[in-house]
Amino acid sequence: MGDFWSDFPGMDTAIMAVSDYIHTATASSNPIIQEALSGLFHNPGKMLRPGMLILASQFGNPDPKKIYPLAAAIEMLHTATLIHDDVIDDSPLRRGLPAVHINYGKKDAVLFGDFLLSRCFLVAAEYTNPQNAVNLGKVISVICSMELNQDADRYRPSTSIRLYLQKIIGKTALLFSLACHVGASEAKAPAQITERLRRIGYNIGMAFQIIDDILDYTGNETELKKPVGNDIRAGLVTLPLICALRQDKDGKLRELVRSELFPNSDYNLILATTRDLGGIEAARSFAHRYTERALREIYKLPHGPAKENMERLAKRLLVRTY
Amino acid sequence: MGDFWSDFPGMDTAIMAVSDYIHTATASSNPIIQEALSGLFHNPGKMLRPGMLILASQFGNPDPKKIYPLAAAIEMLHTATLIHDDVIDDSPLRRGLPAVHINYGKKDAVLFGDFLLSRCFLVAAEYTNPQNAVNLGKVISVICSMELNQDADRYRPSTSIRLYLQKIIGKTALLFSLACHVGASEAKAPAQITERLRRIGYNIGMAFQIIDDILDYTGNETELKKPVGNDIRAGLVTLPLICALRQDKDGKLRELVRSELFPNSDYNLILATTRDLGGIEAARSFAHRYTERALREIYKLPHGPAKENMERLAKRLLVRTY
Repeated sequence: MGDFWSDFPGMDTAIMAVSDYIHTATASSNPIIQEALSGLFHNPGKMLRPGMLILASQFGNPDPKKIYPLAAAIEMLHTATLIHDDVIDDSPLRRGLPAVHINYGKKDAVLFGDFLLSRCFLVAAEYTNPQNAVNLGKVISVICSMELNQDADRYRPSTSIRLYLQKIIGKTALLFSLACHVGASEAKAPAQITERLRRIGYNIGMAFQIIDDILDYTGNETELKKPVGNDIRAGLVTLPLICALRQDKDGKLRELVRSELFPNSDYNLILATTRDLGGIEAARSFAHRYTERALREIYKLPHGPAKENMERLAKRLLVRTY
Repeated sequence: MGDFWSDFPGMDTAIMAVSDYIHTATASSNPIIQEALSGLFHNPGKMLRPGMLILASQFGNPDPKKIYPLAAAIEMLHTATLIHDDVIDDSPLRRGLPAVHINYGKKDAVLFGDFLLSRCFLVAAEYTNPQNAVNLGKVISVICSMELNQDADRYRPSTSIRLYLQKIIGKTALLFSLACHVGASEAKAPAQITERLRRIGYNIGMAFQIIDDILDYTGNETELKKPVGNDIRAGLVTLPLICALRQDKDGKLRELVRSELFPNSDYNLILATTRDLGGIEAARSFAHRYTERALREIYKLPHGPAKENMERLAKRLLVRTY
């Protein structure tokens, strides 16, 4: 679990404390909830959003009694959206294990997600100032709208880079930027630094999602703990394919992904052609650009271990292979 | 819409204002959300929870700028749970029209529900004191746990009155009591009256749900805008059946609902036998008891139009046929 954070000085114990808080906050007298959620949080992801919230808080005067619960809340929110996403997308796997709805059925998976959302609200209401609670509500609304757009676009792929970037703002960057904003503002960091951290979160989030979408084309299935080509099979057109289509002079790739044919397309050929047309490199250059933007802002932060960790994080996420 | 409240002096315009606020608060630049939710709120239910919140607020000094948004938030929360419930139960109809997931698919229905939850939370964060926002989070958690329990019990019917009552606390009474509590406390009603209103909400909620469950046995399908026998077909054992089973000396009814046979049972025969064994009257006496408890508390409220409306409400809900 804390694997990802293990070489970020000081972060390992903080992330552990957040995990403990999540276990407390999601405790339920209901045995089904208890079993499902403790199973889920025993196999956590990278805990990136709570980690960023904690790093951002270190530019102020963080009170762990407040910051850890908020970090837990943002991970609970993220997990709730994953559970609902997996129901919606009918995905069999999450982090290499059966998705919640596979083990418990779709009905209960919807309710587990709602339960987590409610616990996230509860913690947020208890620990943040009202404005941050309002921001949280807004971010969840936007995440839902974006998912709805994504669903509407399925199999009617837009090949506009602008629209793709807009979508991943809602899907990922907003929550990363909220994590940084909440961490910094609740620790009463100076306004200018809080605003800078918000932009850092945003840019790291954009780069993170682009890399995620690239890994769906290039990843190692063992490391990723999921099959590659997931997105394309689900009818989602992401940046590597969009970039490749721009180099598709003879229209061969376009023909392959033609919306009518899409559900029965030759996925492996689409993956290979996207790679051949340089879609991966082109997408990667976008991720680099966002990471550079994040780094430029990070370099202006006050010196100290938090700054070093933030820099390490931005760079690590760019070269990750899982 | 306002039909239900039309002969409650002063309430019609208040409910209208809440409806308007709901339209504002659920407005979205996303055309799918816009269409689905405006369709949904054009066919609202009785607006009982916002109505109770408003009535309760009238025992303090209500500021409509705050109370109407909160009343809207509680209806949005209720609607979110209905949308998710209909996905979970695969119910084709809601208020006589196709359920959201029928028109938009289950994926989008899950997201619409999440979107509404987030808007509810946003409004709550903006307008309530933090303690009421925490209470809201708690109530949502409990509602989810109760639904999960209900799902787990499906086709393994418990025939314990105590467990049934416990379930409907989570399913209905808590949200009614929260509505009263939030209305009264946000309008700064005296603590004793706030507490009394909370109990009134609780007891009205219990009676309301029992009557709901009775109407599933006795209702007129045109008035109800749904088929009777819905619960039993979904494997849910409610109070009329539980009461009837207690009079089932020869075990005939028990045999009919035996868990193994349940999914293929003769529903009409179960309905008829439940009625014959006096299950309806027995259940109705529970609803009477909760209504009487509510009325005893209502009689102790300060005199005025709000008290009269609350009394009218408790009595009306007991004799409703839809």
